[in-house]
Amino acid sequence: MDYAARSLEEHRRLKGKIHMQAKVPVQTREDLSTFYSPGVGAVSSAIAADPSKVWDLTWRSNTVAVVSDGSAVLGLGNIGPLAAQPVMAGKALLFKEFAGIDAIPLVLDTQDTEQIIATVKNLAPSFGGINLEDISAPRCFAVEAALQEIGIPVMHDDQHGTAVVVVAGLLNAMQALGGKLSAAKVVVNGAGAGGTAVTDMILATAPGVDVTVVDSKGIIGPDRTDLNPEKQELLARTNPRKLSGDLATALQDATIFIGLSKAGALPANLIASMAPKPVIFALANPVPEIMPDEALAAGAAIVATGRSDFPNQVNNVLAFPGIFRGALDAGATKITASMLTAAAHALAQAVPSPSPESILPNPLDKQIVPRIAAAVANAAREAGCIR
Amino acid sequence: MDYAARSLEEHRRLKGKIHMQAKVPVQTREDLSTFYSPGVGAVSSAIAADPSKVWDLTWRSNTVAVVSDGSAVLGLGNIGPLAAQPVMAGKALLFKEFAGIDAIPLVLDTQDTEQIIATVKNLAPSFGGINLEDISAPRCFAVEAALQEIGIPVMHDDQHGTAVVVVAGLLNAMQALGGKLSAAKVVVNGAGAGGTAVTDMILATAPGVDVTVVDSKGIIGPDRTDLNPEKQELLARTNPRKLSGDLATALQDATIFIGLSKAGALPANLIASMAPKPVIFALANPVPEIMPDEALAAGAAIVATGRSDFPNQVNNVLAFPGIFRGALDAGATKITASMLTAAAHALAQAVPSPSPESILPNPLDKQIVPRIAAAVANAAREAGCIR
Repeated sequence: MDYAARSLEEHRRLKGKIHMQAKVPVQTREDLSTFYSPGVGAVSSAIAADPSKVWDLTWRSNTVAVVSDGSAVLGLGNIGPLAAQPVMAGKALLFKEFAGIDAIPLVLDTQDTEQIIATVKNLAPSFGGINLEDISAPRCFAVEAALQEIGIPVMHDDQHGTAVVVVAGLLNAMQALGGKLSAAKVVVNGAGAGGTAVTDMILATAPGVDVTVVDSKGIIGPDRTDLNPEKQELLARTNPRKLSGDLATALQDATIFIGLSKAGALPANLIASMAPKPVIFALANPVPEIMPDEALAAGAAIVATGRSDFPNQVNNVLAFPGIFRGALDAGATKITASMLTAAAHALAQAVPSPSPESILPNPLDKQIVPRIAAAVANAAREAGCIR
Repeated sequence: MDYAARSLEEHRRLKGKIHMQAKVPVQTREDLSTFYSPGVGAVSSAIAADPSKVWDLTWRSNTVAVVSDGSAVLGLGNIGPLAAQPVMAGKALLFKEFAGIDAIPLVLDTQDTEQIIATVKNLAPSFGGINLEDISAPRCFAVEAALQEIGIPVMHDDQHGTAVVVVAGLLNAMQALGGKLSAAKVVVNGAGAGGTAVTDMILATAPGVDVTVVDSKGIIGPDRTDLNPEKQELLARTNPRKLSGDLATALQDATIFIGLSKAGALPANLIASMAPKPVIFALANPVPEIMPDEALAAGAAIVATGRSDFPNQVNNVLAFPGIFRGALDAGATKITASMLTAAAHALAQAVPSPSPESILPNPLDKQIVPRIAAAVANAAREAGCIR
């Protein structure tokens, strides 16, 4: 199917894909007086007297703002807030359809880190959670970090949603192959939002595992003099063998390749230099670092991509609806690493018997959100991060 | 009916009164690929190539943000953003039910003028219009003025929504009594958001009319040394007889009293000092400056209040849905004085034969929004304020 043409046609026909709806009709003077003035004054007074009642008396407990500055949208790059709007609305659509969450797309007319932080802080009383989206690295790290203490869950999905799905897939890939993640040699190609978060979550899941990160200039290693502060910190926790060089150097004898880079970044001949039967996650969208059939022909045991037309689709919709559902249900005040790890394990366990062609569940499986939500809510309570 | 108890019960049962809904189901992989990645990329690319397509391809053309800092909520005062949320959600409910507009309640964790302005500017690409609400004077004037050039309609409803309904009511009161607004002696009691805007709109509708404004310290006149810049400007365009003194002084021989002040502010004996058969708008909520029966007994010819249990209810729901419907329909880039005047005349004309007990239409009359919207859209086109 020509999704581009169909999507354009449907967006034009519908003028977007989400809308607001009343939960109650307003047909009589009594309705007006109940839901607006004077009746609503009693609800405001009740919240003024006890602010925690905002969670029971308004929609706040079921809302998430999907916030972007349009600086890193899909594979399209810095296309700005207006062009980012359909993607944020798509996310809002999936929040509602998969997790029943009322999500509001908000695109910002600023790409200044401090302005983004101030704007989201000012909006915080309006929402139960904040899903940051498509904000480019390294600003995304500073924005997310600054918003951790606003009292509601904040998550940059390009980082942690991606990491949860990748780690769930890796756990099941290891199970399907009979290996252990802690014994793997992992190469992460791409040191942006996704690559950094995937690296951190792999390290959190299998402490001490050998991970080497590669960016567009080569291995993030001790010889690099061009690293920004974020990449210097990334180096401090990766590359235990102190490698320097290019992707080919990093891949020698590696068992896992995770690409969050660009189309064609993994030539088939490099797979031959990896350990036998490697695991390949080629996640560039819409064209992966290597096509699945080519990777399998070159010796890969398992291949995952972002595509729906091949097995093992890595799609963030497997994670973010359940993560926020669980955080909202628990009344979480933030999203912790332990909540994300719990989400990854719950997602992995949603596949009863992983096999090389089935390491991740079908995104349309309605069991996923309740499973992840329960695990995340539990982890929030255990961490004591609830209001 | 006990609206307070019923409103609390309904808000608790429903957890608010609005929610997001999908316009399309997401049930298949084809749905996912059409409305999210990869299909949505074509929509983003189309907008990146031609930003004006955001109006056709997203919900922006039908959206309004209802923004408050919670500083002047109903008659409750500065109760803060959380307690303001039910009122903003109520407004969003009315936008949808009366005008089909998707309105999002946004309450801000700041009461700093510059922060409010910056936040709304940053959010502008997300919405088709901004309804400012329950922001206290004089900050509301600066906030609204600073947002006039962001390219979408911005209106502080406590100012202009109120003014449109009051002026519509005055026009019909004059018609019912056979008088002319331009010959009236008007006293506006209250120099906040509502009082200031009502004064300005009366002056715009009947240039040269004699209006005297009174605040809590007395007549805004030449002897006052305590006036802030906004009130000094107000004085420059009002009080042609250079009156000084209290409300009683202002009311001598006045033909119209408009109260946007507080319960009981108009003692019955002052009505006797007005010109014969005066018009009394006692708009304090929920308890007016004088109760209608008392005002009529004291000689008033027409009485309007904010209450639904008496004739002539001045309710902003008569104005704001139609004003924004018209502005959005026309693709207006701002809301001009001429658009507001057009709205007032259209609202007045929605009452075919005004009488002392019927100077304003029933708020539930479904003809009001299309009438006002058409008039406002026309005025926007005539003013050339369309994109």
